[in-house]
Amino acid sequence: MSKKHMQTSFDVIVIGAGPAGYSSAIRCAQLGLKTACIDNWCDKKGLVSLGGTYLNAGCVASIALLESAKIYHSLNHNLKEHGIQAEAISVDIALMMQRKNNIIDALSQQIADSFVDHKITYMKAEARLLNDRQVEITPLDQSGVSMLEAKHIILASGSSPIDLSCAPIDNEFIINSTMALNLGAIPKRLAIIGAGVIGLELASIWNRFGAETILLEAQETFLSMADQQIALEAYRIYTEQGLELRLGARVISAKKGNKKVTVEYQDSDGTHTLRVDKLIVASGRKPNTENLAAAEANLLLDENGYVHVDENCRTNLPGVYAIGDLTLLGPMIAHKGIEEGLFVAEQIAGIRNPINYDLLPSVVFTDPEIAWVGQTEQGLRAMGESIKIGTFPLNATARAHAMSQTEGIVKIIAHADTDAILGVHIIGMQASEMIAEAVLAMEFSASSEDLARTIHAHPTLAKALHGAALTLKTS
Amino acid sequence: MSKKHMQTSFDVIVIGAGPAGYSSAIRCAQLGLKTACIDNWCDKKGLVSLGGTYLNAGCVASIALLESAKIYHSLNHNLKEHGIQAEAISVDIALMMQRKNNIIDALSQQIADSFVDHKITYMKAEARLLNDRQVEITPLDQSGVSMLEAKHIILASGSSPIDLSCAPIDNEFIINSTMALNLGAIPKRLAIIGAGVIGLELASIWNRFGAETILLEAQETFLSMADQQIALEAYRIYTEQGLELRLGARVISAKKGNKKVTVEYQDSDGTHTLRVDKLIVASGRKPNTENLAAAEANLLLDENGYVHVDENCRTNLPGVYAIGDLTLLGPMIAHKGIEEGLFVAEQIAGIRNPINYDLLPSVVFTDPEIAWVGQTEQGLRAMGESIKIGTFPLNATARAHAMSQTEGIVKIIAHADTDAILGVHIIGMQASEMIAEAVLAMEFSASSEDLARTIHAHPTLAKALHGAALTLKTS
Repeated sequence: MSKKHMQTSFDVIVIGAGPAGYSSAIRCAQLGLKTACIDNWCDKKGLVSLGGTYLNAGCVASIALLESAKIYHSLNHNLKEHGIQAEAISVDIALMMQRKNNIIDALSQQIADSFVDHKITYMKAEARLLNDRQVEITPLDQSGVSMLEAKHIILASGSSPIDLSCAPIDNEFIINSTMALNLGAIPKRLAIIGAGVIGLELASIWNRFGAETILLEAQETFLSMADQQIALEAYRIYTEQGLELRLGARVISAKKGNKKVTVEYQDSDGTHTLRVDKLIVASGRKPNTENLAAAEANLLLDENGYVHVDENCRTNLPGVYAIGDLTLLGPMIAHKGIEEGLFVAEQIAGIRNPINYDLLPSVVFTDPEIAWVGQTEQGLRAMGESIKIGTFPLNATARAHAMSQTEGIVKIIAHADTDAILGVHIIGMQASEMIAEAVLAMEFSASSEDLARTIHAHPTLAKALHGAALTLKTS
Repeated sequence: MSKKHMQTSFDVIVIGAGPAGYSSAIRCAQLGLKTACIDNWCDKKGLVSLGGTYLNAGCVASIALLESAKIYHSLNHNLKEHGIQAEAISVDIALMMQRKNNIIDALSQQIADSFVDHKITYMKAEARLLNDRQVEITPLDQSGVSMLEAKHIILASGSSPIDLSCAPIDNEFIINSTMALNLGAIPKRLAIIGAGVIGLELASIWNRFGAETILLEAQETFLSMADQQIALEAYRIYTEQGLELRLGARVISAKKGNKKVTVEYQDSDGTHTLRVDKLIVASGRKPNTENLAAAEANLLLDENGYVHVDENCRTNLPGVYAIGDLTLLGPMIAHKGIEEGLFVAEQIAGIRNPINYDLLPSVVFTDPEIAWVGQTEQGLRAMGESIKIGTFPLNATARAHAMSQTEGIVKIIAHADTDAILGVHIIGMQASEMIAEAVLAMEFSASSEDLARTIHAHPTLAKALHGAALTLKTS
């Protein structure tokens, strides 16, 4: 389209084409709204790639690499029991990264195709919110600033890794989580600041390739947001896999020198020093709001840079919404952003489909995986709720044995009197898939007996969820 | 326990310790009933093994071998894209079988342990129902016939492969499905009579090890019990994998000679001859009722040997029930037997928990898997139902891409007016796991919109089910 004829007025402008942004833009278009979507993500080669962090430098990239890592690890450790032999096992990290990039490209292309199918105007540009529902567009090819306007503007610019002043990123020895998904070689010794979801996912990948992996976590509690029975099980499994988890470890400094990084950290025992080949900073993410709005727009942010929104994702500015990682309405996870994207699109079209934030599943894509929905045992006990708990080990399912992956448990917490399911917590292979049934059960306010009386196919892992429910029935 | 003090009177005697029998016995014991369970399964070495066909010569054995087969196949074909190299790949079939047998032993032991925990009297014996709720016991060690009696007797003796007179089993060249799970070497060329669930599962295993595999199916329609859109997709995928599927092929004779089997079969083109190294007869199963009851007991069977039961699994004899593969109340699948086992146990204890046979999920454990619940499109159209259909390809999920297994689709059929889900049909990796959520949805009489409005974690395969539901929402 030549610049002269470029559309400048829309029903909706979406800033950002991560999961929140692209799903919102597509839904707006489906609902008959004239929609534009502006995104600035570039890969290492400077090529644009729709899909945001989720696709390019988050979960998808991570599970693609983990899949390779699991295969490599399995070749070295698990063939024998199958009676299978293989020799001279090696991995070319560049080719592995190429596979991951191909996957990202294919999925990014699917989004681009969907934009075309839905006649969404897509711009490769930096976007800045001005006042009066105007957006300033600076194309990535520097072809000149322009101005767009829309009745509704959806902010979905996502988040970025938080930098730590004690461990300044140098993009070579001290790197962030995005770079950790693009390493050129397996580090011999690796430290990660932060044993949260991102740190653990990265640790799982590189540890499976033989990297000696040390996680430094400032908190004393491991996976404090997870059910602590599951967290304890996770701690045991990760440690057995060779991850070194150091809790209550606050990093004081990180200095490079002689192709190594020297990390100084403090715990209750005092000060320690660690020498590693790479240091990954995975200490959380911050919303991308720095250049999102001009001062004149008067967009209200909180002290941490999150966009202030009401329960309908509305900002302080009329017609301007914020979704996904930009807000504190829920955790920074792709499906929260997607749901908000759909919710806001439908809201604009006059349809009201509120989101049940209480039933957002959480997933840690390690091996085994962790997934949960609803409330934790410690949370419910702290509230004084009267609860009953059913657990079932994957080890008691035929499917887990057949796949030689018997680690893990399923835990259902139900109300002691009403039997209503209050939380489901899973660690084990495919926990991320198993949690779907639990979310649906809770969406229907199911009792554990409802789950127990639902027929589950044999032999499946889903039987473990069923088994946990049956435990509650017979107890 | 010495014979003198052996208990001879019980609340419940369960004949058979397959899934139907063992789950029923355990549930009876949990409900306070004095329970005995009698089983006659022996492995090749003559050692007893609880778990029946399901565990010893059915699904579990099959998926254990398929797991090995998938790994072997993947080593030979899928490493390269990950940048992983391995050389001198080989498999020792005896060791692979040993792994499968170890899995069976571990799971069988779990049942034995549960019997001990629940104080169930377990006997390794042949059992025969006499009249007056008496059971004649012939121990496998031939230590003398004895007599037991019980207020309630649950028949759960399972089923066996059907022999074909045109292809008599010789246990070496012409074998049944049980033997096909215990081969000592990979056959170069293999034919299977029957392209039903069992034939396809066996074909998937041996084909992945490089056996040239030909399936001869008498029916003209492939997987006639499945949704035909899924069956068509399955036909395409299996054929691409190298399975040769010959439909409308009726076997006339099978003769061995010169270490080969010559199979003669007829189709619409005429008569054909096939020479193979092994022929597997997988043409269905028959209930094990031949020696189940003495004539004097007057147990009513139908003309095919199935035990006649009412909707409560009650036979014509007071206090005598039949469950699992013995009856025609549902298909011969483990979870149908398990549900009936629990149902009858609870019925005896005065609890009424009827089974919803309409929501029994079906699974074909091939690679990819097939799973479904509810009604097929062709079935609904034949009834003139007004329906709408949402499909979603696994290829559009990030998870499938990350795992390089993008074949398959999820199909939801909903009522055109009420939006109630009438059937869900899946082909793809982990279809057996994905179906669990669909069963629960239908158990709650969910609409497709209910599924669409339930949050699904990203990136998961379960997103494909969600995607199919969203398709119905936007269409």
